Amino acid sequence: MVKSTVDGVAHAIASAPRRRLVGRLAEGPATMSELAEVLGITLPAIDKHVRVLEAAGLARKRRVGRQAIVTLEAGGLDLLADWATGMRAMWRARLSDFADHLQEEQP
Amino acid sequence: MVKSTVDGVAHAIASAPRRRLVGRLAEGPATMSELAEVLGITLPAIDKHVRVLEAAGLARKRRVGRQAIVTLEAGGLDLLADWATGMRAMWRARLSDFADHLQEEQP
Repeated sequence: MVKSTVDGVAHAIASAPRRRLVGRLAEGPATMSELAEVLGITLPAIDKHVRVLEAAGLARKRRVGRQAIVTLEAGGLDLLADWATGMRAMWRARLSDFADHLQEEQP
Repeated sequence: MVKSTVDGVAHAIASAPRRRLVGRLAEGPATMSELAEVLGITLPAIDKHVRVLEAAGLARKRRVGRQAIVTLEAGGLDLLADWATGMRAMWRARLSDFADHLQEEQP
């Protein structure tokens, strides 16, 4: 299993086609052909995108018989969601402190 | 005010130094010199990073007297957090459906 980093995940999803693949995978596992159909691109082109998602720890590709099945890995999403919500929470707490401070300054 | 896109925000934060700046700004507004100190880099180098954050709708720079003050813009963080948590929620709902389905299959 790949260790996700915020760098890797952010890089991987800074591409609209790759976000569409993540969106499709969030609905359940897919074959490479199904993913190629989602974007209307060739299998080699899908393979490149899937490799980026795999390297970021956002997806995993396994052979099941003659099919290659791609599954979402939630760890990468967790990492990104936690980073963004953590920053937002910190910022909101500061805004709230600031609002309290302004109230205290009122006569 | 800049309209954030997930592309822009993801690109902006796919850089450890820029994430550190976002972390500093989440604690409250900062001058350009304070931001330069956080990363231990020059003002022109900070300016480049701040421009990327501004273009992504993650920060805003204003002149206050002779100082340039940078403030976090929460909209960009909201967009990213919402995207990642939305994908995660969709994926978890599918996993939960799948688990229910397996239970129903049990004798």
